[in-house]
Parts: sequence; C-alpha cells; structure tokens
Amino acid sequence: MSARDLLQAGPVAVTAGIDVIATDLEAQGVPVTRVEWQPPERCAAELGRLALRAVQIAEANREAVSRMNAARPVLVGISTAAAELGLERGSFLHAGPPIEWERMCGPLRGAIAGAAMLEGVASSREEAERDAAAGAYEFAPCHEHGAVGPMAGVVSPSMPVWVVEDAETGTRSYCTLNEGLGRVLRYGALDEEVLDRLRWMERELSPALAAWLATREDPLDLRALTAQALEMGDEAHNRNRAATSLLLREIAPALLASDRDRDEVARALRFIGSNDHFFLNLSMPMAKAIAEAAAGVPGSSVVTAMARNGTDFGIRLAGTGERWFTGPAQMIDGLYFAGYGPQDANPDIGDSAITETVGLGGFAMAAAPAIVRFVGGTSELALQTTLAMYEITCGESEAFRIPALDSRGVPLGIDCVEVVRSGVLPQINTGIAHREAGTGQVGAGLVNPPMEAFEEALRALAEIVTDRSEA
Amino acid sequence: MSARDLLQAGPVAVTAGIDVIATDLEAQGVPVTRVEWQPPERCAAELGRLALRAVQIAEANREAVSRMNAARPVLVGISTAAAELGLERGSFLHAGPPIEWERMCGPLRGAIAGAAMLEGVASSREEAERDAAAGAYEFAPCHEHGAVGPMAGVVSPSMPVWVVEDAETGTRSYCTLNEGLGRVLRYGALDEEVLDRLRWMERELSPALAAWLATREDPLDLRALTAQALEMGDEAHNRNRAATSLLLREIAPALLASDRDRDEVARALRFIGSNDHFFLNLSMPMAKAIAEAAAGVPGSSVVTAMARNGTDFGIRLAGTGERWFTGPAQMIDGLYFAGYGPQDANPDIGDSAITETVGLGGFAMAAAPAIVRFVGGTSELALQTTLAMYEITCGESEAFRIPALDSRGVPLGIDCVEVVRSGVLPQINTGIAHREAGTGQVGAGLVNPPMEAFEEALRALAEIVTDRSEA
Repeated sequence: MSARDLLQAGPVAVTAGIDVIATDLEAQGVPVTRVEWQPPERCAAELGRLALRAVQIAEANREAVSRMNAARPVLVGISTAAAELGLERGSFLHAGPPIEWERMCGPLRGAIAGAAMLEGVASSREEAERDAAAGAYEFAPCHEHGAVGPMAGVVSPSMPVWVVEDAETGTRSYCTLNEGLGRVLRYGALDEEVLDRLRWMERELSPALAAWLATREDPLDLRALTAQALEMGDEAHNRNRAATSLLLREIAPALLASDRDRDEVARALRFIGSNDHFFLNLSMPMAKAIAEAAAGVPGSSVVTAMARNGTDFGIRLAGTGERWFTGPAQMIDGLYFAGYGPQDANPDIGDSAITETVGLGGFAMAAAPAIVRFVGGTSELALQTTLAMYEITCGESEAFRIPALDSRGVPLGIDCVEVVRSGVLPQINTGIAHREAGTGQVGAGLVNPPMEAFEEALRALAEIVTDRSEA
Repeated sequence: MSARDLLQAGPVAVTAGIDVIATDLEAQGVPVTRVEWQPPERCAAELGRLALRAVQIAEANREAVSRMNAARPVLVGISTAAAELGLERGSFLHAGPPIEWERMCGPLRGAIAGAAMLEGVASSREEAERDAAAGAYEFAPCHEHGAVGPMAGVVSPSMPVWVVEDAETGTRSYCTLNEGLGRVLRYGALDEEVLDRLRWMERELSPALAAWLATREDPLDLRALTAQALEMGDEAHNRNRAATSLLLREIAPALLASDRDRDEVARALRFIGSNDHFFLNLSMPMAKAIAEAAAGVPGSSVVTAMARNGTDFGIRLAGTGERWFTGPAQMIDGLYFAGYGPQDANPDIGDSAITETVGLGGFAMAAAPAIVRFVGGTSELALQTTLAMYEITCGESEAFRIPALDSRGVPLGIDCVEVVRSGVLPQINTGIAHREAGTGQVGAGLVNPPMEAFEEALRALAEIVTDRSEA
C-alpha cells in the first residue's frame, strides 16, 4: 500500500515492518494495515519512526510536488552577480555544498583562481592560490544565493547572470551564461583565451541578450520551451541541443529588430549556435526555481537540491530547511573522449544535478535515447533509468512529459524516505571533468549520489518530524 | 528462407508455393529449396514467376538500396522553375501521377488557378478554371521534372525552387519554398494574401536565401542535418520542427554576415522561424535525390516514388522506369482540427510520400513519438509502425537512424514483391487537406496507398523480368 493509497483510504493506523506495534494496536481494537516493508539495517530506527508519520509525510510531499508543479519560471532579465546578488570583490560562489579551500578539487581551485584574475584581485594563478590559502577570499555555495552553476560553478561579481523568476511566487534564481565547449572556466581553465571570452561575454554578449529581452512583450516561459525540447530528444541536463536551437529561433529575429550593432548580433548568434549546451545555464536556474518552490514545506521528505563541489555531494530536503547533508562525490561511469580514461576523471562536480531534482536529466533519459551514444549503454537503459526513478519519486511533472511513454510526466519529487528504504539512488546524467584544472571535459556518463547523504538527511527529518508531532 | 539468405547460400533452385515446379525439378535431380510461401489469390501467377527470379531480384534490390545509401544530397542553390526546369508560361507542375483537369480534386484546381493568377495568365479564378477546362494550360507531374511538391504541389515558372544535388551522381532535384501554415497555395488557397506572400517569397526571401548559400564554403549536407533531426523527434515528413530549428541555426548568423538589408534578414528569419514545416520542402527533394539514385536498376522491385494528386495514388519501381502504377487515393485516418471531420477531407494528396519512399515519415515514426498527438494513437503505435515497415523493405538506411531502436537504420527500399506477398502496405504519415480549394489543412493522420498500384507494378515487373531472362 503506497502513501498515496493511504491518503485516499482516509486515516488508519499503519505499521511497517515493526510487528510489535501492529500487534499492540490490534490488541486495542485499532484497524491496522500491514505493509510489506522490511527496513534495511541502516536507518532502521529512523525509517520505523517515519513510517508512523507516513500519512503526514505523504501529505507534505503532495504539497511539495504540487508547489513544484505550480512553479512557472520565466526569464525576466540579465544582470551581474554584483548587482543582482550583491556579490563583493574577493567573494566567489561555487557549485555544491560549502567547502573550504584546502578541500577543493583541482577544477574548482582553477576556476576560482581564474575568476580572481578576471576580477583583478590577483594577477596570476599563483598569487590567487596563495591568497586563497591565506584566507583572503570569501567562498559560498551558489545555492545559498539562489544561484546554480555548472561544473565548478564559480561566480564572481562582474559576471553576467540570467535572472529567472517564478511567476507564481516571485522567487528569483540565477545562473551565469554558458561559456561554450573546450577550455572554459567551469572546467578550471584559466588562460588568457578563457578570460578574454569571459570579458567579451560581459562587454558584448550580455548587453545583446539584454537587448533581445527588451524586445519581448512577455518574459520567456522556460518551462514551455523545455517541455518542447523534451519532445525533441533533450533531457535538459547533458543534452540541450533542441532547447538551444529553439532559443536561437527566438533570439535571432528579435535581436535583429533591436538597435544592436549588426556585427555584434552576428557574433552573439554564432556563439550561441556553436554550443549545444548554451541552454543548460537556463535549464538549471529554471530547475532551481521549481525546486525552490518546494523548499520549506514542513515534514516533507522531498529533495530540493542535489549539488556537488567535486569533493562532496550535498542534498537538501523540503522539510529540513537550508541544511546540507553530504557524502563523498562519486566517480562517474561513462564514456571518455579519445585519449582519456578513469584515471583522469575528477569526482562528480556541479550544481547541474538540480535538473534531476525536478525530474529532468537522468530522470528524463527516456525522452533522450540518442544520449546513450555519449554516456554509454543502450536505448533500453535510457528507458529503464526513467522508469526506475518513478520508484523513488512521489509525483509526476505536469509540464515535462516523455513522448515515448505516451506523454507521461517525468518523475518529480525525489522522496528521501523511498531512496533509503529501497536503496535505489537517483541517476544523474552528467559530464566528466578532468581532475586537473584547465584540461576541461573528458567524457560523460551516469553517476549516483552517495547514500550517506540521504541517510543523514533521513535522520534529521526523523528528528524534526518526531519533535513536531510530540509538541 | 529470405532472399538475403539465398544470396549468401549461392545459386540454387528455389520454388515458392508452386509445388508442381519443385516436384518437376526434383525429378530431374536438381537440388530444391522449398520456401514457405502461399501466394495470395491476386497476382498469384506473377508472384510465382517472380519467385523463380528471386535471386536476381534480390541482387537488383541490393544494388538499389546500395545506391540509395550512397546518395549524398546537398543543397547547392536556389533558382526559379523557369530557369532551372525550363517551365514555360501556361505550364504547371503538380503533385502525384499525371492527371487531366477534369479529374483533378478541389485543392489541386484551386492551386492551379492561384498559380495562373500569380503568373498573370489569368486575372481571376473563374478565368483560370475556364481556360484550364478549355485545354489552354499544360500540366505535368513534378516527378517528371525531378521535382517534388507538398500537397497540391503546384509549381509555376516564376516560383523559386531549392536546387538539391546528389553529390555522388550529380542528379538534381527540386522543390518550391514552404509557404507556411494556414491559407496557402499548396492547400488550394488563392486569395490576395496568398499571392502576395508568394510574390514576397520570390522578391525577397529567395534572394536572401541565395545570399545565405553564397556565404557557405560547402553546400549544406541535407542527409546529415536530417539524421540529426531524427535524433530530435522529427520523422521528416509530418514533423520537421527540429530540422527547421537546426536550419535556422545555420542560416541566421550567415545571413547576418551577408550584404542583405537588415530588415529583410529579420523578415526572412521570422518567416522561417514561424513555420515548423519550413524544412519539409528540403526534406522532400533530399528524399527525391535518394530515391532517384535507385531508379533504373534493372529487375529491381524497389519503389522509387510514391505520389498522390488527390485523386490517384501512383508509384514507380526501380525496374520499371518512369511508368506510373496507380490506384485511387485513399482517405486518411487521423485527428481533425476543431470544427472539421472526415466529411471535409480530401483524399490523400501530395508528393511528400517521397519521404516514406526513403524510410522517413511513417517509416521513421519510432523516432518521433510526439507526433501521435497530431496523428492519433499511442507511442507504441509509432514504434510498431516502424517495425512493421522492416517487413516490406529490403534494406536499412546507413544515414538515418532511430535512437529508440539503438540507432538502427530506418527501413529502406520498399520491395513491391513483399508488399503484394505480405499484404502489408506502406504507412504514410501525412496532413489532411480540406476537399474544397482554399480552406487549408484540417487534420493529420496515417494513410496507406491502394494495393492496386503495387499489384499493377508487380505485373509489369513480372513481364519485364521474364522477358529479359528469356532473351
């Protein structure tokens, strides 16, 4: 009997695997429904305590999923991290949960050093690393400022950011512009070519995109565009070719109708068109807006963030506030570009797993069977990956649908209780970064979060739920 | 035992369903392989005669498929029907097999009247219809000039045409530019708005596209672009959203780099971007180039054209030259737009079934599960439609692949013998035209050709193959 069945059946006493309780209740004449559930050894006590609150948790999760489905993220503008996030000189945001300089991986250190040089707070990589180690810089997770960043995810004050707003709640989320492929800051590259491109993006690309947005009567509905892209073989994490193409179809004629210089417009369109991942940096803040809608629902075991800094993997739950629950970032199982192998790979990194948090990426792989050519496996794997994710989610998206499953909504609302109970971990469909700063992407594949993070989160939720119900 | 098995096994006597021959051969000491094959009542004699030539036919069909796989259609230019096809004032091309004015359906008559007004050979619809009935105009199928046209498929001298060339053979194929949705000439609409749009396409759009092509170093590889689109949910007949988006991604920055006026560029991009079917008129001549590569292979039962004029459905075989084999155009089984129903529908019309002829459209439906929302059915129907088409084809495409089938090539090379023998008809995925000129599209769905056309073709092939082997 699922939690959903229970809600429909009305309040009854439910016992799960702990027969002593059921037997006791039956002795008192209370109608009891036994569910087939033998908790695993780890977290057995917490699962047992949470099972007694199954109805309340299911209700809270239904509310969380309902809020995620109600979110309507639209693209309202483009600004800078300084202006929009109040980020100050010497402060840097990064992907994943909090981490100090000493524990940061190669690509993240490289990206921070590059951003320090971009901002002029350091004149060389060595100086930046020395200053960072000496505690001269401030670091904070993107997620703690409503932002998300792919791979290293480093944001510094001068960087342009997309401004996404949930039209339902007004909550804003942010992401930098995608830099393209090859040697880029998000993989820890920091040579002059990388910094020059970032300067051009600030000087020319960002104003051009602002000019495009100024021509629009309505803000761009990112959910609708992503829904179309899922009908076109994207899963909106590791494959964004369709969404990028659709975006360019929006931008091109409008930008021509703006007052921007013709050559600038041509350069902007060429830059966007040469990078199938351009939309990723819109898919991510869109997903952040959706996930954020569920944040703070009391008692909910729904996951509202999954993020990695290349060392740790962290998650947040709707019912446990802004607290992070972490475990070690895992190695990715996938295909490598020619000349690279597992020995070159950095552990899992980036905030891009926010897409899986709302049912995209690995969760929507059945919509993107062509992706197996890049991550390995068969089209059947793509289908089975999505089907397995329905096992650990408590809802389905009303906006994002999978054509090959007769437009069934993608699995939405990862239930931390179900993850621990079933042992089925979320599947994340991601790029592989070289472990050394600056080499860039070396492959792509599938990866799971560490179970420890979900167990830790479960313990915290059990404490909160028990405390609340006893109060 | 399939024809392919036979080829591998080397020459042996084969008999199929006609035991008297096998018995006779065995009596003479000839090794005989009996295949399980009871020919249907119709064409039993021809099937029997062709079965005796199974090895030669299989060899010819292998050659036909090999030529289709070797074809490399590229977009080399844009011209006019007058300049490129030598079409003269008062002459009109149309979709499907040959047909006289008296038997033409409503949309085709409307499109011809509209084209006559566009060319200035008539000043009103009434005058055009009167002149047409009096024999003042010349009509010929597009296919007989290497061209293809969607729906009514009417081509008149001033119309711009895409020029596609098979880089392997140099053979050229042609198609007009797609006019967009709603009230358009190809559905028989002929009011001033329709004619004004056609004039703008000639005056402004076509030169802009020529300017785009002039910026390219290499001609555009249409097969590669279509292959990408199949990974993005298109089937390249009834769904061309991905290909149109990818095309626009090519055109936009290049057109900006040309010397065209900025407003003209903006109008061109807006026109293309507002019409998901824009690429259909490139998908079709690309398919024509591929099909044409197989034309003329002696003894081959592979279909090289399927085309409808709204009254008759015609096919051609590789082994029977330019001769048409026809039967009545069928009604389409599909979904109607609000306010319309089967009583409004014209029978099947257009040259667009050239896409199915090379494994696209209905044959590639498994790549485009989202299309069932427009043509009806489930995603399983899309998959099963493609799988069924492998039964009547003798090869698979090396270029066009289906992600959901682990990149299996689409079914390529419709074998007329297999169609008649199995009773399985090709599935065509198409739009439904209103039966009256000018109303436009009223729905979309699936349709089959009439079996008569395949039976007639089979009889002709049997005569040729028998004659040749006796000579």
